[in-house]
Amino acid sequence: MSKSAGCCKRFLHYAFDYETPKTLVIPSLGVGFVFRFTQFLVVMYVVGYVCVVQKAYQDTDTVISTVTTKVKGFAFTNTSDTEPRFWDVADYIIPPQSDHSFFVLTNMVVTPKQVQSHCPELPSPSTTCVDDCNCVEGRSDPRGNGIQTGLCENYSTTARTCEVLSWCPLEIDTKHALLVAAENFTVLIKNSITYPKFNFHRRNILPHVNSSYLKRCEFSRLTDPHCPIFRLKHIVSEAGEDFQDMAVKGGVLGILIDWSCDLDWWAGECLPKYSFRRLDNKHPVNNVAPGYNFRFAKYYKAADGEETRTLIKAYGIRFDVIVFGTAGRFSIVPTIVNLGAALSFLSLVRREMCQWGPPMEPSSRNNIFLQRNWNPHETRR
Amino acid sequence: MSKSAGCCKRFLHYAFDYETPKTLVIPSLGVGFVFRFTQFLVVMYVVGYVCVVQKAYQDTDTVISTVTTKVKGFAFTNTSDTEPRFWDVADYIIPPQSDHSFFVLTNMVVTPKQVQSHCPELPSPSTTCVDDCNCVEGRSDPRGNGIQTGLCENYSTTARTCEVLSWCPLEIDTKHALLVAAENFTVLIKNSITYPKFNFHRRNILPHVNSSYLKRCEFSRLTDPHCPIFRLKHIVSEAGEDFQDMAVKGGVLGILIDWSCDLDWWAGECLPKYSFRRLDNKHPVNNVAPGYNFRFAKYYKAADGEETRTLIKAYGIRFDVIVFGTAGRFSIVPTIVNLGAALSFLSLVRREMCQWGPPMEPSSRNNIFLQRNWNPHETRR
Amino acid sequence: MSKSAGCCKRFLHYAFDYETPKTLVIPSLGVGFVFRFTQFLVVMYVVGYVCVVQKAYQDTDTVISTVTTKVKGFAFTNTSDTEPRFWDVADYIIPPQSDHSFFVLTNMVVTPKQVQSHCPELPSPSTTCVDDCNCVEGRSDPRGNGIQTGLCENYSTTARTCEVLSWCPLEIDTKHALLVAAENFTVLIKNSITYPKFNFHRRNILPHVNSSYLKRCEFSRLTDPHCPIFRLKHIVSEAGEDFQDMAVKGGVLGILIDWSCDLDWWAGECLPKYSFRRLDNKHPVNNVAPGYNFRFAKYYKAADGEETRTLIKAYGIRFDVIVFGTAGRFSIVPTIVNLGAALSFLSLVRREMCQWGPPMEPSSRNNIFLQRNWNPHETRR
Repeated sequence: MSKSAGCCKRFLHYAFDYETPKTLVIPSLGVGFVFRFTQFLVVMYVVGYVCVVQKAYQDTDTVISTVTTKVKGFAFTNTSDTEPRFWDVADYIIPPQSDHSFFVLTNMVVTPKQVQSHCPELPSPSTTCVDDCNCVEGRSDPRGNGIQTGLCENYSTTARTCEVLSWCPLEIDTKHALLVAAENFTVLIKNSITYPKFNFHRRNILPHVNSSYLKRCEFSRLTDPHCPIFRLKHIVSEAGEDFQDMAVKGGVLGILIDWSCDLDWWAGECLPKYSFRRLDNKHPVNNVAPGYNFRFAKYYKAADGEETRTLIKAYGIRFDVIVFGTAGRFSIVPTIVNLGAALSFLSLVRREMCQWGPPMEPSSRNNIFLQRNWNPHETRR
Repeated sequence: MSKSAGCCKRFLHYAFDYETPKTLVIPSLGVGFVFRFTQFLVVMYVVGYVCVVQKAYQDTDTVISTVTTKVKGFAFTNTSDTEPRFWDVADYIIPPQSDHSFFVLTNMVVTPKQVQSHCPELPSPSTTCVDDCNCVEGRSDPRGNGIQTGLCENYSTTARTCEVLSWCPLEIDTKHALLVAAENFTVLIKNSITYPKFNFHRRNILPHVNSSYLKRCEFSRLTDPHCPIFRLKHIVSEAGEDFQDMAVKGGVLGILIDWSCDLDWWAGECLPKYSFRRLDNKHPVNNVAPGYNFRFAKYYKAADGEETRTLIKAYGIRFDVIVFGTAGRFSIVPTIVNLGAALSFLSLVRREMCQWGPPMEPSSRNNIFLQRNWNPHETRR
Repeated sequence: MSKSAGCCKRFLHYAFDYETPKTLVIPSLGVGFVFRFTQFLVVMYVVGYVCVVQKAYQDTDTVISTVTTKVKGFAFTNTSDTEPRFWDVADYIIPPQSDHSFFVLTNMVVTPKQVQSHCPELPSPSTTCVDDCNCVEGRSDPRGNGIQTGLCENYSTTARTCEVLSWCPLEIDTKHALLVAAENFTVLIKNSITYPKFNFHRRNILPHVNSSYLKRCEFSRLTDPHCPIFRLKHIVSEAGEDFQDMAVKGGVLGILIDWSCDLDWWAGECLPKYSFRRLDNKHPVNNVAPGYNFRFAKYYKAADGEETRTLIKAYGIRFDVIVFGTAGRFSIVPTIVNLGAALSFLSLVRREMCQWGPPMEPSSRNNIFLQRNWNPHETRR
């Protein structure tokens, strides 16, 4: 027949003939069993672990969220050190609003009527002096409270210290005013989340909850796990801390909202899980500036136009609302990848067992090697 | 020949002989076609879906970003309730700066000249009284405004309520002052992002944009999609809301900046995509404390040193700038993984078709089984 | 024997016989070498790249973190424009506390004694006028400072401008007060992180560090890489900027803390890595509102009850503490996936080399084709 025809036939063969390897069957139960068992293991792995436990067939996305908080409650302080005072939200939430956290003032050192002037430093090894020679004008010790004027003044009948230019009188960190009632403040946390990749939106105020319930409910892991109103004391105790302890020195407390969800239709509801953890450490060992505090001032102007301020060293608990989570939804690519990988093992099992495969009883190995014809010419026959 | 030589020869064979399975060709168009077609599908999947759609060959990183905002504009309020007042940025942005969001005051209830004293509670079922017996000294109702003194006072000519220790006069939530002009405020949003894994930095002010344009431009999806200056009214309407509606009760509005990018050289520019969504919900059903508001106070000191404050219940819109996105860049590992997985299918197709594979016309199956020599001894021959 | 028995035998065979393909050995060093070498490459890839470089055998999680900062230091300003003034933390940190960033005031324009009244606009092409006809009552130019009253007033002996309703006197952006000493302020950054998936918690104050060290240490990449106290000047210079330059116009500086960790037991300690980058851009080209500044006001009430304010245009550096990182820990799924994928290549190499495989010297290819029996009937024999 013509050359071209032959060539075409050749191509057809190559393109559409189906090839299957000539296989050889060894009737060895041992080998066969090992082989099937390994297959079984791989299948188990795929079904059990990859699919059920790890959900490796899903595509994932991380949460985007927004939080608003509203604290309610008031306190009354009446210590020997400070005049009686009533506190409401506008007084103890500083700053009045922020996006993912809120600070509740629980304890403070108030230094009223500060003006820009000169006054002797607080006594300390580095500030005490005998006469002006010990004080260097313009020197400012980072541990001090102001810029030295070069004079040595009487701090008290007993102690003489260098005079500094500063806001005077200086803060004396002894007279504390504690807001004991703060533990009974409640906070309403409104949190809405989005999984952009899946265009999935959700709020922590669940659709089935009605307004009347929201007005009176209070979060409790057992009875009201989905009420968005939390009592501060309860949050702190859930984190394994004591509120009054924490209130004195202050601290940072995390309100973690876990929105990890399985968005496949068969997975059911996607609900927030609340947990609470103290985020700063309270251990005395290797701790610098324990707790949490900061200073702020209220500025006033006297009739004569002189500016005075009330300095407040505010101790308190900062509640950080940390929203996290990953959502998963079935996606073809990871499925293929994981299945494929597992299958490649499956096929490997079959092919490699006789070559680099698992050890078998010598007999059967023997069987197999028998099949290998070490002299290629033989096969040519 | 010597034993060692034979052994060595054996090893050489084992190490460097190339093995290829003895294959058997079935000239069945049907089977061949099914086989090739399946191959085709797998290849299509790899090329089309994995590579083009899912970009599964890329390594990814999530964005790190920083945002600064600058609001411009002023308003004038002149309602019957409040004296005329001019508002500029320093008045209506609270707090004056924060990192990923800014709050614009749009409506408020002002309670001036509050001092720490006693005054009768606002009338409500729980606060009205006939005589002092109805009021318990020291009792503080979380829904109330202060700590009861135990006295029953005339709130008005008609109503008597328990007296409380609080900031007096109490806030009466009726006299609102609306900043109607707020809708015309503009905000400049500066956003710089980083993909640390790829050491990729970018700003939302694009290099090709010149200063003169930035001075006069205003964001518009169609005409100016890359202008970083937004008119508040426009943002709100893009989110499908009405500004004046939202201004009354307040709310949270998300300015989402999507920096999802394909950083492969052939992918071209990496540009921010802006979108706007209302993040809190405005549905009346099951909603507690709708909108967004908070209280803050300005503190003053009278000549006699008595502290007075002006309490402001601030309604307004908090704009959260949410920056998100994942960048992808070609990486060898995911490529191998995905290719490998797909290929394992490819090879599977070939090997398994005759065993657990897709059904074929009996004839060809028959063909194949014919080749299987069920009696191993036979092959030994 | 009975039909059922035969059938059963058949099944047993099918279930437990072990099949191995009849292979054919070609004693060609060339082909063998190419084959083994390719295998070698794949193994190298798996071991070297996937496992060592990419750690593709690990499951990963992203960090959740909390940050508190405490700035220390004071400054003294005494310029010709402003009266001498002493500054401490309560004065220059605005707002007094926030969660992931802190702002340090470095430069300002102070406009004291502003009251709500009328005053002529600042001269500019759009505000200058000849007589009242040039001024439209109620017109408010966004670039202006207030709402026009319709009058044309003398701004100075030379210039006449439209009168506006605003906080008067208007701010004149010339008299700056620079806090030169700000560069010597120090900040203590406390950062605790969590990898929820691995339940792993860590602080940037390392366990082995003792308090006395923390009291005196200062961060330095070489000598004190784990001291959490940073000198502002040092941070800025590490970011490649000059503090005094930056202080004038302000800016945003990122303190990046990288917590990327390998949590496998053999990987050793998980430590924070600090780096510093300027996040806003300082290039003059296409830059609108360079640097970083905002306006805020302190409100006072005069004896007669009139409200006055001191407007402060605050320039300064906002330090954003950006915590990021991914932790990896050995996990079976990614391991299987990556191994599987690589192995599928491995097996591919063996099977495909003779078919679509890499080119070989014709001789051996020839060898192989010889084995292919193009006439199926032949095999049937």
